Amino acid sequence: MVKKEEMVVTPWKVSGRIDYEKLIKQFGTQPIDEELLERIRGHTGRLHLQLRRGLFFSHRDLDWILDKYEAGEKFVLYTGRGPSGPVHLGHLVPWIFTKHLQDAFDAKLYFQMTDDEKFLVNPELTLEDTARFTYENALDLIACGFEPGKMVIIRDVKDIGHLYRIALRVAKHVNYSTVKAIFGFEDSSNIGIIFFPAIQAVPCFIASEEEGHNVPVLIPAAIDQDPYWRMTRDIASKLGYYKPAQMHCKFLPGLGKGGKMSASMPETCIFTTDTPEEVEQKVWNAFTGGRPTVKEQRELGGDPSICTVYAYFYYLFEEDDEEIAELERRCRTGGVLCGDCKKRLTERINRFLKVHQRRREEAKDILDKFLME
Amino acid sequence: MVKKEEMVVTPWKVSGRIDYEKLIKQFGTQPIDEELLERIRGHTGRLHLQLRRGLFFSHRDLDWILDKYEAGEKFVLYTGRGPSGPVHLGHLVPWIFTKHLQDAFDAKLYFQMTDDEKFLVNPELTLEDTARFTYENALDLIACGFEPGKMVIIRDVKDIGHLYRIALRVAKHVNYSTVKAIFGFEDSSNIGIIFFPAIQAVPCFIASEEEGHNVPVLIPAAIDQDPYWRMTRDIASKLGYYKPAQMHCKFLPGLGKGGKMSASMPETCIFTTDTPEEVEQKVWNAFTGGRPTVKEQRELGGDPSICTVYAYFYYLFEEDDEEIAELERRCRTGGVLCGDCKKRLTERINRFLKVHQRRREEAKDILDKFLME
Repeated sequence: MVKKEEMVVTPWKVSGRIDYEKLIKQFGTQPIDEELLERIRGHTGRLHLQLRRGLFFSHRDLDWILDKYEAGEKFVLYTGRGPSGPVHLGHLVPWIFTKHLQDAFDAKLYFQMTDDEKFLVNPELTLEDTARFTYENALDLIACGFEPGKMVIIRDVKDIGHLYRIALRVAKHVNYSTVKAIFGFEDSSNIGIIFFPAIQAVPCFIASEEEGHNVPVLIPAAIDQDPYWRMTRDIASKLGYYKPAQMHCKFLPGLGKGGKMSASMPETCIFTTDTPEEVEQKVWNAFTGGRPTVKEQRELGGDPSICTVYAYFYYLFEEDDEEIAELERRCRTGGVLCGDCKKRLTERINRFLKVHQRRREEAKDILDKFLME
Repeated sequence: MVKKEEMVVTPWKVSGRIDYEKLIKQFGTQPIDEELLERIRGHTGRLHLQLRRGLFFSHRDLDWILDKYEAGEKFVLYTGRGPSGPVHLGHLVPWIFTKHLQDAFDAKLYFQMTDDEKFLVNPELTLEDTARFTYENALDLIACGFEPGKMVIIRDVKDIGHLYRIALRVAKHVNYSTVKAIFGFEDSSNIGIIFFPAIQAVPCFIASEEEGHNVPVLIPAAIDQDPYWRMTRDIASKLGYYKPAQMHCKFLPGLGKGGKMSASMPETCIFTTDTPEEVEQKVWNAFTGGRPTVKEQRELGGDPSICTVYAYFYYLFEEDDEEIAELERRCRTGGVLCGDCKKRLTERINRFLKVHQRRREEAKDILDKFLME
């Protein structure tokens, strides 16, 4: 028997086959259940694809955020990105969902670019590198449709003057044993990354500081970031703030066999700046649930549950629930070949990227409007 | 036998009877010897009182700084203050000497107010408290005679935007085991103070960054700050900078029996804002080397080596070497009574404070000229 690869999910490493139900238990979060979905539907109308299909699957205090909202107390959104390389489709998933939440709940978004963190954990990255990625990644973010005045981009290194006071107040309440237990720091960890969790906590409290009263915060983000908010929730009340609520999403699978999309394996990722030919090439080489031969596929059918091409339709590119059900049925019964699916997905991705890349160019002219000060 | 109180010298605690020769060995620094004094005299003319009388007694790379200076390469000075309370005479000692070095070597001074550090280590201090002390302490600093354009006051919290990039580059090279070994941090230490050594390192490199080439730095400071520079020297070359050189001074004794002047025991300190009556009262209660009765004093003489009143004349208020030698002789032979000395010291301190307090008021009008940006 092949030994199962162990599941690892930390802010800096995600590997192995991810068991999301187990993660909910391990991390002590709550599943987003039917009752919660029903409440959300009451505010958003039809549920967003990422909720309907369980990409956002777990939460902390989402019910509390909805209580507050229903009692007339508006919340702000907070999410972010570690700018260590170019943006791929996997990164866009929570951003697209965040934009949906913003529109549905009229919520201001604080978006943190943790260029300090990425500099501190990557031996090969300079501050110039992470500043460049911050700029490039911000273009992708804005291309998701965010509007000036509704989103603030926090660049940790440039904007530290806005962050340091709150970070110090957080840091004073967090000791080394706590971050060692939560993040697995070791004596060989550098003192910058040991301090960093205090910086990542800041945007949870920045709206409360700015407005002079407590403002609820909801963080939509991939589940690997949960340790940060566990720490932040622990100290929030000591500083007189609300605990930040969270919605956790799964990782978009890479185009290879197993694992999430990872920029360190470029052949498994569709980058937002890829050319149509690169997309075609990558999708053509993608891992699918298909049979080795056309004959077998026709006779036995494929397995969409392990197919990366199907996953892209399911989570991003086939909005229509009936169409996606039909695609699954046809695959399982041998009614569709992998080549057909790959061709269709290539078209969908390229159509999406054409628009995204245009918006990304336009973002250069308005980027300044999203910056602090 | 009474157990000798153990000597403790760290950046946050100084207690016990200080054995400065032992500190030189323990810390691995060099004594400022006759040869070095001779070299300094070549540049400054008559040696400053604090060098003649061994208040500055230890160094690292002072010979190298002089080599550089003599080869035409100018250095900058860096020292600082943890603003956790009002300034007393003990704090002024290295500042007065720094001003002397600045004049003699035409050196720009970077002065760091570590309000972040003091907030992080004192449970009872808020950031508002440390900001207030920063302001108050800066007035005392400027009152020592520094001129705008020749000194930059760095207020860590306000000026973090100028410090963070270098601090991150330092922090990336320093791990937890290193700061644990150097500063005695424990698992219960907060993550802010663990990161802080990176912030205190920054002014060592700020001139090099600003000028675009390596600039030698000399740090005159009390010896308890040495651990910071040990760490900084370790990583300087990894970042392409010179190692900072240092001159270490002793602690001005408090007016009580044993120990340095400590703001936590206000009766043992002369604060710069004390009234003439407060000074009189404190000096009157000072611990001396005198005998219990006038008769015994006249017959047996006193012991200036343990007398705090004598120490104040020696290190601060009696510039004339012949006068101080005469005072010592007369004390030892019973030719002077403690009451006489106390009266004279009170007069000297009050004369000094009258000028200092006027300059301190005037400093309010020019403080802005010393700030960053």
